[in-house]
Formats: sequence, C-alpha cells, structure tokens
Amino acid sequence: MSRTILMLPGDGIGPEIVAEAEKVLHKINDQFNLGLSFESGLVGGAAIDEADTPLPDETLEKATRADAILLGAVGGPQWDSLPMAKRPEKGLLGLRSNLELFANLRPAILYPQLASASSLKPEVVSGLDIMIVRELTGGIYFGQPRGVRELESGERQGYNTYAYTESEIRRIGRVAFEAAQQRGKKLCSVDKANVLEVTVLWREIMNDLRREYPDVELSHMYVDNAAMQLVRAPKQFDVIVTGNMFGDILSDEAAMLTGSIGMLPSASLNSEKQGMYEPCHGSAPDIAGQGIANPLATILSAAMMLRYSLNEEKAAEAIEAAVSKVLDQGLRTADIMSEGAKKVSTREMGEAVLAAL
Amino acid sequence: MSRTILMLPGDGIGPEIVAEAEKVLHKINDQFNLGLSFESGLVGGAAIDEADTPLPDETLEKATRADAILLGAVGGPQWDSLPMAKRPEKGLLGLRSNLELFANLRPAILYPQLASASSLKPEVVSGLDIMIVRELTGGIYFGQPRGVRELESGERQGYNTYAYTESEIRRIGRVAFEAAQQRGKKLCSVDKANVLEVTVLWREIMNDLRREYPDVELSHMYVDNAAMQLVRAPKQFDVIVTGNMFGDILSDEAAMLTGSIGMLPSASLNSEKQGMYEPCHGSAPDIAGQGIANPLATILSAAMMLRYSLNEEKAAEAIEAAVSKVLDQGLRTADIMSEGAKKVSTREMGEAVLAAL
Ligand SMILES: CC(C)[C@H](C(=O)O)[C@@H](O)C(=O)O
Ligand SMILES: CC(C)[C@H](C(=O)O)[C@@H](O)C(=O)O
Repeated sequence: MSRTILMLPGDGIGPEIVAEAEKVLHKINDQFNLGLSFESGLVGGAAIDEADTPLPDETLEKATRADAILLGAVGGPQWDSLPMAKRPEKGLLGLRSNLELFANLRPAILYPQLASASSLKPEVVSGLDIMIVRELTGGIYFGQPRGVRELESGERQGYNTYAYTESEIRRIGRVAFEAAQQRGKKLCSVDKANVLEVTVLWREIMNDLRREYPDVELSHMYVDNAAMQLVRAPKQFDVIVTGNMFGDILSDEAAMLTGSIGMLPSASLNSEKQGMYEPCHGSAPDIAGQGIANPLATILSAAMMLRYSLNEEKAAEAIEAAVSKVLDQGLRTADIMSEGAKKVSTREMGEAVLAAL
Repeated sequence: MSRTILMLPGDGIGPEIVAEAEKVLHKINDQFNLGLSFESGLVGGAAIDEADTPLPDETLEKATRADAILLGAVGGPQWDSLPMAKRPEKGLLGLRSNLELFANLRPAILYPQLASASSLKPEVVSGLDIMIVRELTGGIYFGQPRGVRELESGERQGYNTYAYTESEIRRIGRVAFEAAQQRGKKLCSVDKANVLEVTVLWREIMNDLRREYPDVELSHMYVDNAAMQLVRAPKQFDVIVTGNMFGDILSDEAAMLTGSIGMLPSASLNSEKQGMYEPCHGSAPDIAGQGIANPLATILSAAMMLRYSLNEEKAAEAIEAAVSKVLDQGLRTADIMSEGAKKVSTREMGEAVLAAL
C-alpha cells in the first residue's frame, strides 16, 4: 500500500514551515513504516509567478490523485491588486471546491505551556478545547450569482449570494454531530435564523439530524451572540458547527483566544476522507524568509493528516507528543516567546521536534 | 420649539429599563428646559400580542413624526416559532428601514470603574474606546431575492442576497470618516474583499472617500482578521466601519470585550439626524420582570439621543456624568456586580442617576 502526500508550500512563510513539517513526516514515515511517498506542487502567488494562475492544472491533478495535501499558506501584498479571479486565494478556494473538501475542522486548543500568551484572563481560557466545524465549499463563498453590475440609475451595485441546499447542510451537520459524539457530546449550531432565510433552513436541518444522534445535546445560537460568548465564556462550547462565512470569522476569533495562533492546525475533508491540511495562520509576508516563523501549526497539521486521512492514529499521537515535549523543554519561536523561555528559529524548532520523536 | 420623543419599551426587560430612562429624560427636560414631549408605542412581541403585527401602522406613524425614538429591546422565546415575517425582530428591522436609519453607531467603551468585569487582561482593555459604525439598512439583511425554493432535484435551497450600491457605501463611509475626524482620526474599514465581490466595491468606495478626508488615516482589514485583532489588541482601533452583517457580529464582539454589555448604548441615524436609540444588549427574557436588569445602557442611549438627534450636548454630558457618579458610588446591578460594591435593583439604579443629576 503506497499513499501519496502532496506538499504545497505556497507563499510567504509557507515554504519555511512546510519544510520542517516535511522532515517530520519523513521521519515518522520511517519510524512507523507508513509507506508514504511525497510530491510537491505550486499554488497561490508562487503559482501565479511561475504559471500565471493560482491553481495550475498540474497542481489540481496531483491534488486529486493524492491521499492528502499539506499546504503552507497563500497570499501576499504583491498579488493584492490582481483581479479577484487571479489572486492567490483562488488557488486555495479552487482546491477546496474541486476536491469537495466541505468539512473544515478547526480546533482551538490552549496549550497549558502557553497559557500566558492569551489576551484573556487565565481562568477564562485555561483548558480551552473547542472544535469548530466550518462548511467550506458552499455558502456565500461560492454562491451564484455574484459580481458588480450597473443599475439603471447608472451607479454600480456589488452582489453575492448566500445559499445552502438541504443536502449541503445535512452532510456538514453529520460531520459535526459525529465530532461531538467523539468529544464532549455538545454541539452548538450557529446561524442568523432571526434574519436570514438560508439559516432558517440550516436550523431546521440541524434539528432533523438531532434524532439520529440522541446522545448529542444540540443547541442553537445567533452568530452575534456566538461572537460575544466566545469572548465572555469560551469554555461553554464543545463543538460548534456553522456555515462558510460565519465559520471563517468565528474560527479565527476562537483561535485568537488561545493567544498562539502559530500553534493551531486545521483539516479540510471530503466524503472520502481525502483531505487538505494547513495551519490556521496566514502567509505572514512581513516575516517571510527570516527563518523565525513557527512551524508547529504545520507540524500539527501533519499530525491531523495522519489521523483523519491516513488512519494512523499512533503516528499522529507521536507527533503531538513530540510537540508537547519541545514546549515542555521551553523552546519557543518568536510568536510564542515569553520570559525565561529559549527563543529558537523555524529550523531549530523543527529539529527539536525531530529529536523528540 | 417642541420636540417629540417616542418611547418603545418592547419586550422582556424593555419596559423596566425604558421606565428608568424615561424618568431621567423627564428630569433633564425640566433642568435644561428642552421642551421635549413624550409619546409611547408598541413594537416587537408586545405589538404582536396586542395587534398581531410586530410593527403596527400607528407605531410607524408615530415613529416617522418623532424627532427621536428610545427603544428598549424586542424578542423572546414565546414568539420564536412564528414565521419570519411575524417575528418581533421584524418590528425593529421595519423601523430601521422605513425611517432609513442607515448609520448605526456602537461605542465599545471600558468604564474604568468596571475594568475588572472584562474577561480580557486589564492591560489589553484598559482605556478601551472604539466606535463601530455599522451600515444598518442594506447588505444581506435587506437584499433581494431571498427565501427558500425547491430545486429540480426536489430538495430545498435557502438563499439570501448580499448587495450594496455605491451610494449606500458612500453615505455610511462619510458618517464613519466624520466620526473619525472627531475622534482619533483613524478609520479601519472591514470587508472580505479577497472573496466577496460586493466588498471589493465597498473597499473601492472607501478608498475614493479618503481624498475628501485627508486628515483621516484609512486602513482595510478582512473580517476574519478583524475578529482576531479585536481579541488580540483591541486598542489598535479607533473607528471601524463595516456592513450590516459583519457589523452585527463585530459590534457584539467588541461590546463584550468590555465585560459590561449592560452599559453600552447605540444610535441609529438617518440623513436628517432623526434617530432610534437603544441599548446594545437584548431583551433578556430570562430576567424580565424581576427588577434586576441594568438600566444604564438605556439611560446612556438617552444621552446619545440628546447629543445626536436633539443637539443638546450639555444635557447629554449631564446624564453621562450622573452615570459615572453612581458608578463611583459603588452602585451595581447584578450584571456588573463585583466584590465590595453595593448591589441595587433596576429602580434603585434609576433613582440614583436621578439623584446624581
Ligand atoms: C484566504 C481566505 C480565502 C481564507 C478564507 O476566507 O476561507 C482564509 O481566511 C481561511 O480561513 O482559510
Ligand atoms: C435583533 C436582531 C435582528 C438585531 C440585528 O441583527 O441587527 C440585533 O442583533 C442587533 O444587532 O440590533
């Protein structure tokens, strides 16, 4: 059995952090005899520069064939003035939609070793462990019609469409209910059902699904209240499920509650468990090329990949244990540095994880 | 010169908190010789129960004639299963759109006396003073087409439309630039221009306006990043301007940073400065009728009313000073209670403000 991993470093700090995760994957491959083989490809700004498109056909083909993808990050100021269809983000969105990676899992976990990094009071966030399940291939991100049109009055109007079908809602709902079953058995569905019709349907389908998962306690919350409750008392949540746009906002807010977004991985899965794995943070062009970025979110994304797409739980746990060990050793990249700790570079952090494996 | 204020208590704790604000307005009317006269009306669930509609014609007529409106809050579980068009929220949305109250001003201020109520570390929020300018009569809240349709496949699809015209963007942009001119001269426009066409137009118009306000420093931020930055370092913001939906989410998140949402007022203005004023918090049905709700957000909303719609800055400041004084006296309703303070009821808090005037 040979399984292929596609590495897509992308832009900014992407290549630096993916390089460290790749070393970790190579070592774990040997240690656990996983039979992984590795390919690489271009996406985002790197692909625009090389091939004049953020998602070259070759990359899409490799991605389709791969068992899993490890992505660094895309985007940077040099591509910001390009028309929407040619921007780095379209590479990412194109991969999500072409591979139907509809289920985005974003854990927001506070590492006890990094508790002081949070901007929230320790008692509010200590032990925080939330899983956000975000729908990733529908909603307003992909809704048609969209664009800018000229009205009869002569002025322009920009417009987008926020739409979900029953089946789109049901399949992400199932992923969320199942995640809740394996965790604290509490699921909070976030919508704006007092204003938006599309989320009235969302709520109805979530209520329907409840019958299939009688062991899970389902609640509903409006998105504005959810944004508040995440700040007020985030530990009230176990699993949150929501649409693409609300999920984009709430998962970033939740990630930041931990104060160490450089630590947070994410997974985007389709119904065959093929997946794309990437850190929650962006391409950080301001620190790119300096060798100071934190590779741990990417390394932990590799662990998620082993767990969800390759069914190698032991190997995943080995990586997570190694990361925990280097944190215990007091090693910190600049973004999570605190007094008394030892500041290390991207490469030193990667080497330390290798050594801890 | 006689000016009319319409009082709309609404639902839940609405009647209790509006009663206190009304007493304050009566006293300030006498003290400053403002020539105010008062009317009252039904809206939300209270109007549904009485008149089978969340916004009776009579209320809308009174609102149209009034110089300003003071609203408590709308909504409650007993009306949650009604069809969308008949729900309490439609009363609020109907007032906003019929009166064209497009400019929603939501300050997020940390009262030094209540600093410990925040879930954030003191150094992150002390001195916090942000103004969120939210577009209130357009965007996805009012976009057409909307609804739930049956697809050819037989399954249903919910859909809403997120749209803005150039002129809608320009008029809210002007309000925000002007607010920034009167404050710290920094304006951050929040959009999702890397994904949504409607917000590409938004960003373009904001950039256009910059030329008319050369003394204001304009920046742009994606909404997911804004949700993070509010948690990480909220004091980086002065004025934030954004659309209806993003504004709903971010203004609630920002309000909660202070830990005392029972203190935060809001104003919704049209181009004639006619306005509706209401607390940022909701109708809190769980504590309604117990006499323990915090009336200060509503009383401070009355102060905003005097400032923005009635041009009575001195009277507004008198109310704000009185509120500050009762906080200095250590009086606290349950929601802002802390050790060593004196717990008071809704009425006692109102009386204390009256006495401090
Ligand atoms: C880069 C951008 C298109 C993307 C999104 O909005 O989904 C990012 O913010 C994310 O959350 O992965
Ligand atoms: C009650 C609801 C319709 C309303 C909104 O979403 O605008 C409320 O959340 C607000 O922010 O005033």
